Amino acid sequence: MRKVAILGIGQTAVDEHWDSSLREIGGQAALAALQDAGVGQVEALFVGNMLAPLLDDQNRLGSFYADWLGLARGESVKIEAACASGAAAFRAGVMAVASGALETALILGVEKMTDQGGHAITSALATAADADYEIEQGISFVGLNALIMQRYMFEFGWRHVDFAPFSINAHSNAMHNPMARLHQRISVDNFEKSAMIATPINLLDASPVGDGAAAVVIVPAEKVASLPGRPRILVAASASRTDTIAVHSRKDPLFLSAASDSARQCYEMAGVERKEIDLFELHDAFSIMTALSLEACGFAERGQGIRLGLENEIALEGRIPICTRGGLKARGHPVGATGIYQIVEVVQQLRGECERTQIDGARVGMVQNIGGSGATVLTHILKAD
Amino acid sequence: MRKVAILGIGQTAVDEHWDSSLREIGGQAALAALQDAGVGQVEALFVGNMLAPLLDDQNRLGSFYADWLGLARGESVKIEAACASGAAAFRAGVMAVASGALETALILGVEKMTDQGGHAITSALATAADADYEIEQGISFVGLNALIMQRYMFEFGWRHVDFAPFSINAHSNAMHNPMARLHQRISVDNFEKSAMIATPINLLDASPVGDGAAAVVIVPAEKVASLPGRPRILVAASASRTDTIAVHSRKDPLFLSAASDSARQCYEMAGVERKEIDLFELHDAFSIMTALSLEACGFAERGQGIRLGLENEIALEGRIPICTRGGLKARGHPVGATGIYQIVEVVQQLRGECERTQIDGARVGMVQNIGGSGATVLTHILKAD
Repeated sequence: MRKVAILGIGQTAVDEHWDSSLREIGGQAALAALQDAGVGQVEALFVGNMLAPLLDDQNRLGSFYADWLGLARGESVKIEAACASGAAAFRAGVMAVASGALETALILGVEKMTDQGGHAITSALATAADADYEIEQGISFVGLNALIMQRYMFEFGWRHVDFAPFSINAHSNAMHNPMARLHQRISVDNFEKSAMIATPINLLDASPVGDGAAAVVIVPAEKVASLPGRPRILVAASASRTDTIAVHSRKDPLFLSAASDSARQCYEMAGVERKEIDLFELHDAFSIMTALSLEACGFAERGQGIRLGLENEIALEGRIPICTRGGLKARGHPVGATGIYQIVEVVQQLRGECERTQIDGARVGMVQNIGGSGATVLTHILKAD
Repeated sequence: MRKVAILGIGQTAVDEHWDSSLREIGGQAALAALQDAGVGQVEALFVGNMLAPLLDDQNRLGSFYADWLGLARGESVKIEAACASGAAAFRAGVMAVASGALETALILGVEKMTDQGGHAITSALATAADADYEIEQGISFVGLNALIMQRYMFEFGWRHVDFAPFSINAHSNAMHNPMARLHQRISVDNFEKSAMIATPINLLDASPVGDGAAAVVIVPAEKVASLPGRPRILVAASASRTDTIAVHSRKDPLFLSAASDSARQCYEMAGVERKEIDLFELHDAFSIMTALSLEACGFAERGQGIRLGLENEIALEGRIPICTRGGLKARGHPVGATGIYQIVEVVQQLRGECERTQIDGARVGMVQNIGGSGATVLTHILKAD
């Protein structure tokens, strides 16, 4: 299996893009990544997307973008794994290049959500859960997360306000990311007074949806050298694991076993210890997921992920910086694109391009993209070479 | 890149499965493939599906089936490339095993279409075309194919009845396939008198939709030996190519360039000449696609694919047998599952399991799965070892 390197990155701002179509926002990110990589063509295109069939009447985004980008005779495909679609497309591309079948691939994560009203978006997002056993009972996706959060607070004795540092940290870092959806500092007071959505999840526990696209160009590592001032970025580990799709089927709904399994596999594959991870872009779709992810990946004991926020260990200079560019909470969560935004952001850190949110000397970054309520988890470790 | 072998196959009948859910039909095919392979577990699940988000409110079929099948801690993902979703999932699995990342994978193609009415199905299928530039203009998928067929008849001087042998051959072979949707011989007279759908496409030019699921288990070829009476089935070549998504963007709408490109790549990769192909399971969604596929893959000159039908060269004992188990036309076309049905059927031929539709001494089979009107084409060559 050949090692794979990330040669180029591109992204659009996460926003309500009323003036740009699905086609255009994806095209912009893809072209930016090609330009950053300094290549005009790639052999294949892997697209991560969840909602275009439901919200944009468009399936088959592989050929759709291959055509639009002038890559029309190569290979193209779309991968869907709910909110983990982006990382799942990344992994499919990495496997194809690692196998020797391809020499270059472009991976694009894209989602255009805000042309539709809230009801359509909520219904579309619900297709990530179990249609027969969860959604048919009337629960929404935020409702499922609210049940998990409620249980977590009950089991471990935390108050709602104890989750505030996660959102405050994400908003603070997003202030310096021009691609972020929200540029607005928040306080504990804002957090406590925010509108309730599904008890105990309020508006500032939840990540905002948005339109966005992010892309990377990958090549075999042996084909590229480190450049002066821009290290070679290696995909040091890639793992994908699954848990039950319905939350009620899990032995323990408060432990993300697929996050744990995939992270452990990555530590081993990359040959790194947890303490060597310089930053962790995790999947903070809701503040409860931040706590559970930190615990599953071994950065905190069960029920104690909250402490990393309260003790400021998640800040840029902390023990395990998270959401360094705003996270899902403040960069925004254009669902099928999110996994690629996360990877782009880790590459920015490893290249030292993050200015006021730069982590000094970052060499090893972990990134984790979660589909559904923890049922599909992809973890990657990237290394500056 | 390691060679990959197909160890097991499974399928459900293509039908209106009123008594089985999406979950159940996929599960039946997957369990049949695991049983046929003689394995109880696999490391990963790749699902090909196009319409479940639209017709069954269910996205993320990767974790959905991994959970249902008790494979819940492995890797799982869904691939979508319209009607080529099945073969695209197969290729993704093959790449992952070829790369060395996985030792076993289950690939499942599944579609549950008939719980919905015809209008919902037609609208859902239209998401395979270009939403902005084709569907927004009011055309349906059968309409697009009708325009291509009309033009073909005009350019090359064929009459509608000249397409009859393709459908007659498919129906004849399906008589001996218990998994086929239609068990009904048809005559030229039936063909000519069949109800018109979109001129010149009538009911007997078109493949029927249906509910169905088919699955295969793959492993590295080096890990399995040929068994007495059951040859080792190798994936000798895999190629995926793209054309413009909108038909009107093509220089020549009567030539399937992605079919041609991917077939040529496969001949080279497998080291076989076209005349060595013992059977060709092609994508006969409409009779016009049969003619165009035969031409694109080099079995007939431009505009002359029709002759292979008229001269009976597509029959079991002909020069290039097609639709040997009924094809899309009579086995049925559960869209995201079709590509895996085709692969299962080629494996049946190479194993010598086809009884009355067995091709004597079949050693090399080609299979081609087309998404949209030729925009995404995956071709594979399988060999009995």
